[in-house]
Amino acid sequence: MPLTPEQLAEIEEARSEPRQTLRATAPGMEAHLYTAHPVLDHGLVRVIDYMGDDGAITQAARVSYGRGTKSVSNDEGLIRYLMRHWHSTPFEMCEVKFHVKLPVFVARQWIRHRTANVNEYSARYSILDREFYIPAPDQLAAQSTVNNQGRGAVLEGAEAARVLDLLREDAMRSYDHYEGMLSQDGQQGLARELARMNLPANIYTQWYWKIDLHNLFHFLRLRADAHAQYEIRVYAEAMCEIVKDWVPLAYGAFEDYRLGAVQLSGKGAEALRRRLAGEVVTQESSGMSKGEWREFVAEWG
Amino acid sequence: MPLTPEQLAEIEEARSEPRQTLRATAPGMEAHLYTAHPVLDHGLVRVIDYMGDDGAITQAARVSYGRGTKSVSNDEGLIRYLMRHWHSTPFEMCEVKFHVKLPVFVARQWIRHRTANVNEYSARYSILDREFYIPAPDQLAAQSTVNNQGRGAVLEGAEAARVLDLLREDAMRSYDHYEGMLSQDGQQGLARELARMNLPANIYTQWYWKIDLHNLFHFLRLRADAHAQYEIRVYAEAMCEIVKDWVPLAYGAFEDYRLGAVQLSGKGAEALRRRLAGEVVTQESSGMSKGEWREFVAEWG
Amino acid sequence: MPLTPEQLAEIEEARSEPRQTLRATAPGMEAHLYTAHPVLDHGLVRVIDYMGDDGAITQAARVSYGRGTKSVSNDEGLIRYLMRHWHSTPFEMCEVKFHVKLPVFVARQWIRHRTANVNEYSARYSILDREFYIPAPDQLAAQSTVNNQGRGAVLEGAEAARVLDLLREDAMRSYDHYEGMLSQDGQQGLARELARMNLPANIYTQWYWKIDLHNLFHFLRLRADAHAQYEIRVYAEAMCEIVKDWVPLAYGAFEDYRLGAVQLSGKGAEALRRRLAGEVVTQESSGMSKGEWREFVAEWG
Amino acid sequence: MPLTPEQLAEIEEARSEPRQTLRATAPGMEAHLYTAHPVLDHGLVRVIDYMGDDGAITQAARVSYGRGTKSVSNDEGLIRYLMRHWHSTPFEMCEVKFHVKLPVFVARQWIRHRTANVNEYSARYSILDREFYIPAPDQLAAQSTVNNQGRGAVLEGAEAARVLDLLREDAMRSYDHYEGMLSQDGQQGLARELARMNLPANIYTQWYWKIDLHNLFHFLRLRADAHAQYEIRVYAEAMCEIVKDWVPLAYGAFEDYRLGAVQLSGKGAEALRRRLAGEVVTQESSGMSKGEWREFVAEWG
Repeated sequence: MPLTPEQLAEIEEARSEPRQTLRATAPGMEAHLYTAHPVLDHGLVRVIDYMGDDGAITQAARVSYGRGTKSVSNDEGLIRYLMRHWHSTPFEMCEVKFHVKLPVFVARQWIRHRTANVNEYSARYSILDREFYIPAPDQLAAQSTVNNQGRGAVLEGAEAARVLDLLREDAMRSYDHYEGMLSQDGQQGLARELARMNLPANIYTQWYWKIDLHNLFHFLRLRADAHAQYEIRVYAEAMCEIVKDWVPLAYGAFEDYRLGAVQLSGKGAEALRRRLAGEVVTQESSGMSKGEWREFVAEWG
Repeated sequence: MPLTPEQLAEIEEARSEPRQTLRATAPGMEAHLYTAHPVLDHGLVRVIDYMGDDGAITQAARVSYGRGTKSVSNDEGLIRYLMRHWHSTPFEMCEVKFHVKLPVFVARQWIRHRTANVNEYSARYSILDREFYIPAPDQLAAQSTVNNQGRGAVLEGAEAARVLDLLREDAMRSYDHYEGMLSQDGQQGLARELARMNLPANIYTQWYWKIDLHNLFHFLRLRADAHAQYEIRVYAEAMCEIVKDWVPLAYGAFEDYRLGAVQLSGKGAEALRRRLAGEVVTQESSGMSKGEWREFVAEWG
Repeated sequence: MPLTPEQLAEIEEARSEPRQTLRATAPGMEAHLYTAHPVLDHGLVRVIDYMGDDGAITQAARVSYGRGTKSVSNDEGLIRYLMRHWHSTPFEMCEVKFHVKLPVFVARQWIRHRTANVNEYSARYSILDREFYIPAPDQLAAQSTVNNQGRGAVLEGAEAARVLDLLREDAMRSYDHYEGMLSQDGQQGLARELARMNLPANIYTQWYWKIDLHNLFHFLRLRADAHAQYEIRVYAEAMCEIVKDWVPLAYGAFEDYRLGAVQLSGKGAEALRRRLAGEVVTQESSGMSKGEWREFVAEWG
Repeated sequence: MPLTPEQLAEIEEARSEPRQTLRATAPGMEAHLYTAHPVLDHGLVRVIDYMGDDGAITQAARVSYGRGTKSVSNDEGLIRYLMRHWHSTPFEMCEVKFHVKLPVFVARQWIRHRTANVNEYSARYSILDREFYIPAPDQLAAQSTVNNQGRGAVLEGAEAARVLDLLREDAMRSYDHYEGMLSQDGQQGLARELARMNLPANIYTQWYWKIDLHNLFHFLRLRADAHAQYEIRVYAEAMCEIVKDWVPLAYGAFEDYRLGAVQLSGKGAEALRRRLAGEVVTQESSGMSKGEWREFVAEWG
């Protein structure tokens, strides 16, 4: 993710001019503004703007004329209560806008979260850069044998090398042909909106992505999860670090009640109650299917 | 809308502490922050927070590392182009949060706009204030005789006085009974979530309402329109004045391409083309229904 | 909820004309179509239309040309898997449209669920009926002393009678005045859009409400919950019975994984693990706040 | 788009079993159910399910117990009125579910319409088919010289042949390597979620896409427009033909008030008024920018 000198200069210029505002500010977030956090081999996440802080959540929950509570410790208690009892609207009162650079196949997963605003770089209008995601060797994994949508062991020696060569060569060749088709040197030059169809899904795209804190937490819970594909999880993890600095109280509640939470089905809760009462519970006596029981045992032993 | 001294002090305190930020700021909007704009007899609109300015629109449209364009005049041209060609996502990149105090029957219309975030003061949890909307005499209008959902002439003398008396007395009596049912003085006291059902639709409620600029424009186009009910239109008009100070270029484009725009049906456009060619067009030869023709003539003579 | 003879005739007519279709049909749901399920004293829920059945969920999950799975038992396993792992989009592939008659204060809670389509009877355009919700004596509850937004004991004798009298009298008087203001008998007659403001929040309104199954389950989880206000919970319960007949497999999974599920925070899960290992856990050693610990003990003893 | 014999048999089976229903049915839509409409070289659109008909729109607008109006001609008048006056909610009361097979670069444009439900075939979970979009010669266009996001003249002879060869060869080679990386023959086999990144954007994907009629009209207005990219426009046009058979009255209103409508800015309307009064209007005297004036003249001469 080497930014060009021009891009670095633009970022530096944006960071060099503090302005006065009467709005709520989050000092932890000001430190992140505009700065690029590298993700994967050429990707990035950076904060373009934000609205609100922890206090904005309690202020909205109270529909206040001024601050929502008298103190930070009151804010924390109320925020944890709101999160625990699934009150979503106060968390919607904070908003954040990111600039993200990411491979197209990651963008295709990402965009399925519909409650966000998006402006993507247009390959109809502009020419994409020659930047492709090539996995690091420790992420070059075999198909999982137990999970149809997951990864197993890391590929070994010759196979790994073969795969990396194919990915690199196909990416370069596709891009050469993309440029060749676009060229107006001695020919008409294919329309951009057509030429782009030759580019593989590991090419990088970029977008501005704006979302409220409630929906961001929902995104992070699904995408920072161990079952999410590694290539999107690293973006979610980078954003978790940023959100922690932005709204530390809300993030703490999110960690305890969502990220680290355990969901028990009615049958699962019943099985635990019986265990706590000293009973030995088996799959048969639990009423769970094999799949459910396997997941239950993985969590509770 | 007389704010209490405590509320005024809270507002003053919030306005007295400028902070430093690296985010985009809109000076015209800073002047509005927290200040209450009175609407109707006890209502208000005030800006709690905002994200972005005119430059944020072009910056997102370009997916830029720094500013979107080189100059304000470039910003204007691009913003007008985006508005004219129905590009909505760049306008979604600005966000605003209002505190609104409004009669319940207005709130019921307002909430039909679903693409916004809302935190309403809870009458399940809290006790509402004794504040009711009573129309000013010049807004006390008769049912329209031509439009089932509209107003006609202003009510005259005795009838107007009768209506105002009824509205005032019923409001006061309902509120007396609301307080009486809630009271725990010598009785158990009815639950708040039940007692509130006795209150009429002209009681005031309040909420925090957060929306992006694209959806706000959509709201304003419908609600600042001459066909909107007066009691919601005055809120929309107050917000128009605020938005004009926040994003003057975007608001100018909105005025020209939306608020002041005229929509022609296929048949209407055809009729105008024939007129421009010197032809006399009648309802019959236009292919329009009577209702359409009436609306067409009202616009074009 | 006495339907008029005209309304009953309209319902009967609609139910008397079976048509042929190639679409998926749910026999359990056909039996509900158009029929009014009474709720509260004058309310109702009835199914106007539906799209899809249990098979439509697996068909969409598989993006199939024909049916999604080979058998009902495969459908069940896949549906339970999808629900357990928070796959929401296949459940969005079923849709239902209800006609609901409900008090305005219930409608105001209900409408906060934004991911639905709504057409409400317009009191700007039409005149509302003289129908008000008056609680049954066993629902006339005092304010809870432990929960700011809840009910406590049922009101006793004289107080209950006083409250019922007030609610009834204020409703009737408000409606009399509403009619009086609207009347064009010897006067101009106030506009409907204004006269309605005199009506209290227990008057009945009605709407068509259309929603997909995923979002309906979300609504039902929150509103069929013991903490929901009784007056909206009875609507949610009536809809639960209907959904059970419509998509029995999906409803079964919803019951086990959502309605009957128990959510454990990270700290709660840790406390249970320690208990299962034989340890005695206290509030202090759990790291939970008093409120959290109280809720934990209420669930787990 | 040659369907396999298995797929054709599944479609035939689905079409062979008419069932009885009490729901509203649209005979014109029944004829389309399940049948595949070919689009582009390997794509398709087919109707999987629908809810409602023209009568469902007026029924919802009236919040009726039975039908909304007494006759089809009343339906038509009301539907045209609702469309003309931007009443959107009655049109949301109809819903349709499509199965669409489309190139990935088209899918990426399509998904930007967020108010729809989508289930896409998962390349994390399954292996994609060897099917790629290769433009027909008459769609192989050069970059427009006047519009950054558009096409100009069709490519000629040798250049066209070169482009088609590149697109075909790169697609086949990428797919060969995709298969090679996935293979578990003598090697571990790369995870599907990784191997897919090698596939270009002209590979076909498929999804179930469900949307209400109001939002579908919005999609069709933008995507059946002459400025939309050809490859998505042909899908929109195929759906227009289907919708015309489903809700002919609503589609007729949509054609007149949206598809065939002309939007005039405030300045544009003023210029037309002056022309109708016999005045000669120039760009300078119109107050329009050069771009606006060019578009105005293109429409009005």
